[in-house]
Amino acid sequence: MFYFGADYYPEQWPESRWELDTRLMQAAHFNVVRLGEFAWSLLEPREGSFDFAWLDRAIALLHRHGISVVLGTPTATPPAWLITRYPEILPAREDGRRWTFGHRRHYCVSNSTYHQYTQRIVEALARHYCNHQAVIGWQIDNEFGTYCYCPTCQRAFQAWLNKRYSSLEALNQAWGTRFWSQVYTAWEQIPLPWSTSLVPNPSLALDYCRFMSEAFVKYQALQVGILRDLAPDQWITHNFMSFGYDRLNYHHLARDLDFASWDNYPLLGDADPSGLALGHSFIRGLHPRPFWVMEAQAGPCGWETLSRNPLPGQLRLWSHQALAHGAAGLLYFRWRTALAGTEQLWHGLLDHHGQPGRRYQEVAQTGSEFARLAAHLKGTLRAPIALILNYEDRFAFRIQPQTTGLSYDGVFRRLFAALHRHNLPCDVLGPDDSLAGLALVILPMAQILEPAQAARLEAYVREGGSLVVTFRSGIRTSDGQMVDQPLPGVLAGLCGLEVEEYEALPAARSIEWDGQCWQAEGWAELLRPEAAETVARYSGGPWAGQPAITRCQLGRGRVTYVGAFLEAGAWASLLNQEAAHRGVQAPLPAPGLEVRRTGDSGSVLYLLNHTAQPRPAPLPGSYQDLLHDTKVQGIELPPWGVAVLGE
Amino acid sequence: MFYFGADYYPEQWPESRWELDTRLMQAAHFNVVRLGEFAWSLLEPREGSFDFAWLDRAIALLHRHGISVVLGTPTATPPAWLITRYPEILPAREDGRRWTFGHRRHYCVSNSTYHQYTQRIVEALARHYCNHQAVIGWQIDNEFGTYCYCPTCQRAFQAWLNKRYSSLEALNQAWGTRFWSQVYTAWEQIPLPWSTSLVPNPSLALDYCRFMSEAFVKYQALQVGILRDLAPDQWITHNFMSFGYDRLNYHHLARDLDFASWDNYPLLGDADPSGLALGHSFIRGLHPRPFWVMEAQAGPCGWETLSRNPLPGQLRLWSHQALAHGAAGLLYFRWRTALAGTEQLWHGLLDHHGQPGRRYQEVAQTGSEFARLAAHLKGTLRAPIALILNYEDRFAFRIQPQTTGLSYDGVFRRLFAALHRHNLPCDVLGPDDSLAGLALVILPMAQILEPAQAARLEAYVREGGSLVVTFRSGIRTSDGQMVDQPLPGVLAGLCGLEVEEYEALPAARSIEWDGQCWQAEGWAELLRPEAAETVARYSGGPWAGQPAITRCQLGRGRVTYVGAFLEAGAWASLLNQEAAHRGVQAPLPAPGLEVRRTGDSGSVLYLLNHTAQPRPAPLPGSYQDLLHDTKVQGIELPPWGVAVLGE
Amino acid sequence: MFYFGADYYPEQWPESRWELDTRLMQAAHFNVVRLGEFAWSLLEPREGSFDFAWLDRAIALLHRHGISVVLGTPTATPPAWLITRYPEILPAREDGRRWTFGHRRHYCVSNSTYHQYTQRIVEALARHYCNHQAVIGWQIDNEFGTYCYCPTCQRAFQAWLNKRYSSLEALNQAWGTRFWSQVYTAWEQIPLPWSTSLVPNPSLALDYCRFMSEAFVKYQALQVGILRDLAPDQWITHNFMSFGYDRLNYHHLARDLDFASWDNYPLLGDADPSGLALGHSFIRGLHPRPFWVMEAQAGPCGWETLSRNPLPGQLRLWSHQALAHGAAGLLYFRWRTALAGTEQLWHGLLDHHGQPGRRYQEVAQTGSEFARLAAHLKGTLRAPIALILNYEDRFAFRIQPQTTGLSYDGVFRRLFAALHRHNLPCDVLGPDDSLAGLALVILPMAQILEPAQAARLEAYVREGGSLVVTFRSGIRTSDGQMVDQPLPGVLAGLCGLEVEEYEALPAARSIEWDGQCWQAEGWAELLRPEAAETVARYSGGPWAGQPAITRCQLGRGRVTYVGAFLEAGAWASLLNQEAAHRGVQAPLPAPGLEVRRTGDSGSVLYLLNHTAQPRPAPLPGSYQDLLHDTKVQGIELPPWGVAVLGE
Repeated sequence: MFYFGADYYPEQWPESRWELDTRLMQAAHFNVVRLGEFAWSLLEPREGSFDFAWLDRAIALLHRHGISVVLGTPTATPPAWLITRYPEILPAREDGRRWTFGHRRHYCVSNSTYHQYTQRIVEALARHYCNHQAVIGWQIDNEFGTYCYCPTCQRAFQAWLNKRYSSLEALNQAWGTRFWSQVYTAWEQIPLPWSTSLVPNPSLALDYCRFMSEAFVKYQALQVGILRDLAPDQWITHNFMSFGYDRLNYHHLARDLDFASWDNYPLLGDADPSGLALGHSFIRGLHPRPFWVMEAQAGPCGWETLSRNPLPGQLRLWSHQALAHGAAGLLYFRWRTALAGTEQLWHGLLDHHGQPGRRYQEVAQTGSEFARLAAHLKGTLRAPIALILNYEDRFAFRIQPQTTGLSYDGVFRRLFAALHRHNLPCDVLGPDDSLAGLALVILPMAQILEPAQAARLEAYVREGGSLVVTFRSGIRTSDGQMVDQPLPGVLAGLCGLEVEEYEALPAARSIEWDGQCWQAEGWAELLRPEAAETVARYSGGPWAGQPAITRCQLGRGRVTYVGAFLEAGAWASLLNQEAAHRGVQAPLPAPGLEVRRTGDSGSVLYLLNHTAQPRPAPLPGSYQDLLHDTKVQGIELPPWGVAVLGE
Repeated sequence: MFYFGADYYPEQWPESRWELDTRLMQAAHFNVVRLGEFAWSLLEPREGSFDFAWLDRAIALLHRHGISVVLGTPTATPPAWLITRYPEILPAREDGRRWTFGHRRHYCVSNSTYHQYTQRIVEALARHYCNHQAVIGWQIDNEFGTYCYCPTCQRAFQAWLNKRYSSLEALNQAWGTRFWSQVYTAWEQIPLPWSTSLVPNPSLALDYCRFMSEAFVKYQALQVGILRDLAPDQWITHNFMSFGYDRLNYHHLARDLDFASWDNYPLLGDADPSGLALGHSFIRGLHPRPFWVMEAQAGPCGWETLSRNPLPGQLRLWSHQALAHGAAGLLYFRWRTALAGTEQLWHGLLDHHGQPGRRYQEVAQTGSEFARLAAHLKGTLRAPIALILNYEDRFAFRIQPQTTGLSYDGVFRRLFAALHRHNLPCDVLGPDDSLAGLALVILPMAQILEPAQAARLEAYVREGGSLVVTFRSGIRTSDGQMVDQPLPGVLAGLCGLEVEEYEALPAARSIEWDGQCWQAEGWAELLRPEAAETVARYSGGPWAGQPAITRCQLGRGRVTYVGAFLEAGAWASLLNQEAAHRGVQAPLPAPGLEVRRTGDSGSVLYLLNHTAQPRPAPLPGSYQDLLHDTKVQGIELPPWGVAVLGE
Repeated sequence: MFYFGADYYPEQWPESRWELDTRLMQAAHFNVVRLGEFAWSLLEPREGSFDFAWLDRAIALLHRHGISVVLGTPTATPPAWLITRYPEILPAREDGRRWTFGHRRHYCVSNSTYHQYTQRIVEALARHYCNHQAVIGWQIDNEFGTYCYCPTCQRAFQAWLNKRYSSLEALNQAWGTRFWSQVYTAWEQIPLPWSTSLVPNPSLALDYCRFMSEAFVKYQALQVGILRDLAPDQWITHNFMSFGYDRLNYHHLARDLDFASWDNYPLLGDADPSGLALGHSFIRGLHPRPFWVMEAQAGPCGWETLSRNPLPGQLRLWSHQALAHGAAGLLYFRWRTALAGTEQLWHGLLDHHGQPGRRYQEVAQTGSEFARLAAHLKGTLRAPIALILNYEDRFAFRIQPQTTGLSYDGVFRRLFAALHRHNLPCDVLGPDDSLAGLALVILPMAQILEPAQAARLEAYVREGGSLVVTFRSGIRTSDGQMVDQPLPGVLAGLCGLEVEEYEALPAARSIEWDGQCWQAEGWAELLRPEAAETVARYSGGPWAGQPAITRCQLGRGRVTYVGAFLEAGAWASLLNQEAAHRGVQAPLPAPGLEVRRTGDSGSVLYLLNHTAQPRPAPLPGSYQDLLHDTKVQGIELPPWGVAVLGE
């Protein structure tokens, strides 16, 4: 069963309207809504006094129409009475100043008073709804990610450091505090990386990112614990933000959930299809169970200014893309556009006036298609290619971008897009995920690598794996210090080379590879191959004629080291070649279309046209068109069109 | 009698110089100066101890030379001794931090201590000068507009809300605080829209703008009350800032004055002639009596960097433009350039050295011309076209610009410029001003409309008026919530259409109208005409072929709805056509010149050349050249030249 | 003896490594290192408890290898224990908020507690090392320049003002506080120029800059006094920042030192050769004794992002350039790249891994060349041309740039570059330095001039000197007020003209001079020559045909007044012509090379190729190649090459 629906806020509308809403939902094949998120001040209007009656009535009505409910714990919006009584709950910004009431996510994650109030509201909700038939699961809070720099967090950080390092001596050693005379002689001296102290010690800044991540993991665990205890039959998820907005370690946050969900707003970015595919792949990699899109864009959105409008067909296309990538549920945010509040320009499926229009119709059609497809689309295949995403590296790059022409996210996006261009199936894995069975592993800018991780990579290669390692790998210890060996440090043996020199490129630099001349930008390294052979050389600049890409055979596998940030086409060629070498190819040669094989057995072929032009897709044989229940041999996709084929 | 002079600060110069200054003024035909503005620390050097002797001497000297005096109340610059004693008088910025002493406008408008000190100094001045023959009137404070975000203002805002809404229930309902759990259960919980809380609830932000406006109205009323009471024979004005700098509701501020004044610095902007004309028209619309230019640019200006220099002829041109637009007084800011202080680069008519130069000579010539013209130029005609300016809409747009390609001021400027291009006479009216007798009314982006306002507009049309309504009208209630009807909400019937979809345009979109193809940008709406007919259609993009502009006959008049932000030329054509339909045309066909008919009976024709090239003006008959006292039949205006013709 | 070495931080490395470091230094011909800078928390790990043992061991080891030591007083980095105990030591930023611990330079210069702790650590160090044979001198603190805006500084500023002006009456007069009612009636009322008060009174802001400068001079004097007292046989210097980073009056700071040093990072700017030459000339002008480069760029650098890499040959080139400009010592920053801390990307000679590479080899070669050259290169010649640098003017320009197209530093750089283009030897002198014997003096934008200074300039000209004065000279009194005479004020007589009008140019304006048409930008003045003759006229714009540059004969000399900010080529022609008039020319005609005559007697000719292309240098006769010990008659310099010739 595929879950399909919307995020619904009945409390923001007259109760007399609920019935109509519910019937419209049913007509659009909805079987689930999310409720209760942000409703704390209605659920607990005064301290300790709970009112669930309105929510009960809403759930009952939905349930009668066959619509299940996901309940959001309302902790992203502590009520005014709570903040007024305990203003220290408000978080502090990077410059140390407190937020004021009036937005959302206005709490310090380390505040123990807030933990108590969280516990009380979550317990009350759990007790009340744990046995409700309509309530299938919980979403905890909303889009975790607000760093806090308040005194409570400073003390919590100091305690966290004490636990991590045991002694100040060890901390001073790990952070290298002899630099600039920053030796700490008492835990209380340790600051947060406030913006008022300019560029902080990078090791301190890295530990602060870890601490913030763990503080949210801990805060989530507080809620998870209550729900597991009181509502053991209902599942638990959290709605993550999309790739690039994730300031916390999502791998750690996802561990305690039953599955991951995310919020997908293509038009907040540039609606680039590979970026959307990365969004799905990234979330898919967080947890072994199929993910949900908990908030899918439903119309133009924005707080002070509006995004573009979804064009006719786009909402349907993006919804199908989620299915193609293995989603098990999809809810549009939101049902009807709010009349009031900061998000009154963030459009739902229905406009302010509440009458069903173009977007509703398109979604209703999508709902009927999903109902037809659901049986074919349980789960998704594991991809033979993996990109390794490591939050530690990401934190380190945010602290020190190293060059204005480079960012961890930008490099990651370009690598993913290179694979996507050839429809090469790729998963995004965490640094501790198993590499077993993978044909090709890509390790981008893996700054921080422990010897044990290097050993796992080496074992993977020796057993026949192909590994691609990029520049700026193996440069740091987990303390955030630079390694004192030649680069790529702990990977040098595996890659069979040393980095002789590196440079933040002031201008593009050409590289000759495979008979072609490509440009590198942002970063380049001069390689000194030892066990490796040279695959590509610089053809311009001070390093002309010297190695830029090398390859090293090791056991039954091989390692390619790419010393420069290549242009997009070069990555696409290189990775396609490397995939071909391992026998991996696109499910179907269909240039200009996104193609994915999916379903448990991989028997379903998804074709998606992310353009405003019609696109032909010549098929190698006869297929079953699952949307129209016909046989097809060749097919043309209309603009923003979708085809779902069974073999 | 036309008032002509300068803003003069005798206290900043040796008393020995005053006599020479006064004689130079007299030679330039000055008959008025403004004095005393910013002089608090000299008028009350120590708390409660007043010293008016120096001012008495200055006024007496001026009076002896036939120069009258406008006195500025000095409340824009509370003295150091007052701030040191009551630092809570200092206003707080949007981020909640207090200003420090050392600039100007450094007071919180809600501070009751400040009200007391204001009362004392204004009373003392009023008692001393109420019967002085030379003192003809008062300017209150200077350029009101500093928002304050201090705790006093927070409490005052809460009290203001209490009065407005009576109950928290009503406030919560009006603001839609169920969104994001912002329900207030005590007045003390209500915040200001500090920047530390990110994007606030738009209804709260809108009420804060209203509150700030009213706080200044109230503060002004405190001073007005004293002056009306003690100095009933002297008039009262305030020097407003130019269009675009006005953060308060000038319509409300102007109500309590005897007439409006403004500060005109063409070279702080781009000296665009239609922008300058808008400046005058905007102020002229604030009050039924003729306005003054209380500060007219006198030289290059700026605090840290200098504006351009006025070219020879420009000071004269801009002065005549004020007359053409109905000004009854004009004072240059300032007489002589200050040697010290923040404005030591803000040039007066005389340079630092005090010797009369090019700018003085030009102004002296202007003075003699004004003396000659005064008799012909009493008052100004009311224009047959009106643009409606509504501060409520403006506040709402500042809070949520809706798209980066649009601003209320930008749209307003383009509409005014479209009329100005064809020299179509236009007034800028407030939303409550009478529409009686107007041939054409233009209602731009009237977000907030009450049913009563819609009814007034409908009555105007039914009785034969022409109304042009733009996109983004009728979208909000006065609570700042979006309306829950189809757009344009309360105007839908009047306009005979519904807005089916709207979009913040990511790129220009073409519209075909009147056989031509025009571009729209920033905003577009897809219209579904009901009683209306389609006037123009989109010719590109997803809405190609669908209505963009419609027209609806109603009673004896008609309503044109323009669904997109057209390029300048399209507006000019459209509005010119609409004006022609009502028989309104330029006083004289003279492309490239600004032409205005003025004087009580409209018998004077003003021609202004805002370019560096000479421009011919073929005349349809024989005119009296009022500047040279000759008959003319055709005329060529030199660069930056002016002609004033009587019929 | 030429001092050559690096900045070394043994405390950041295992003691077992020290021996290898020392041997590598010795092999590179190092004879000096700087130690101890930033090491406070190791030298005084707990309050009052000193530990010099590690430093003793490091010095002893270096000494054994013939390497002397400069000790840095560690006061740029107060330890955490001190800040925790006295948080008021932390400085406040322009917005009044305190810094937090975690960077460097985190002290308020006016804090008396900090003075006491400074005294204790400096005394302890001085007592311990005053007689150590290896310790040749001291560097005080590091790169002074952090303005502080804390309450302590406010009180200190008020006290400083009290001393400067004696009475509030005098201060109010000097600052012109009648403007905007800022009359102070108690010293405690006087604010700092916080950013929270917007644009301050410029006189107040100027006095604050002077106060901050003097506060650092005083703080430096505290340390100088201790060292002079306890360590009379060791010299004292301070490492200044490069031209443009200097926020304090370096002339005043340099007075108390034995010589000046500076930190030279060509790749933080654009490595423009004239900019580098200006850097050396600027520091050379601070003190009569030869300067040191205390930190020379050793590799790519940056905190969060990296600069470019020095190309092969550049480190050597820049080192020789220092010698050519008269440096007596040069230390690279730093020996080995730090593994930890904010500067872990700021590369030393050795990379993180510690193995000698390309940069080390190049520096070692340079070391051997320096050893050979040292005997020839004692001291440097005084140049016949001087540019006058005045911090008072610089402060005034930073407070009010006057136009966005102009900056004091930008004008100064262009004038210096104009001389440099023709290899005309130029010194940068302070406003009080003797002008005796100079052929040509250039006075750029000398805003603030006392009558006595004008008299000295006049005497210089009357006795035969040539003086070039630019626009914006003589416009202010030393109180920061504008002069009330025609400009150039006190210089009007000397220049023989009056400035009739001036303008911040909105666009380029053409000037005809010497048969050519040049462009001026940013600023122009309309001159009215009295005793002067017109040299160049405006050929476009509103002043076409009127004087732009004039020249005035006076006594045996002459004064050229340049009324506009000319393009670079015009300055080069003008100043070359003026130099030629005085018989000054380049040591050798070698276009595209930097050429300097140096050595005590000027017998050594330095040729530097700052380009990536080889450059020929035809020689007028036979020279001794001092690097290769051969005779040469013509020479070609390789890219980034250097030649040193004896006659």
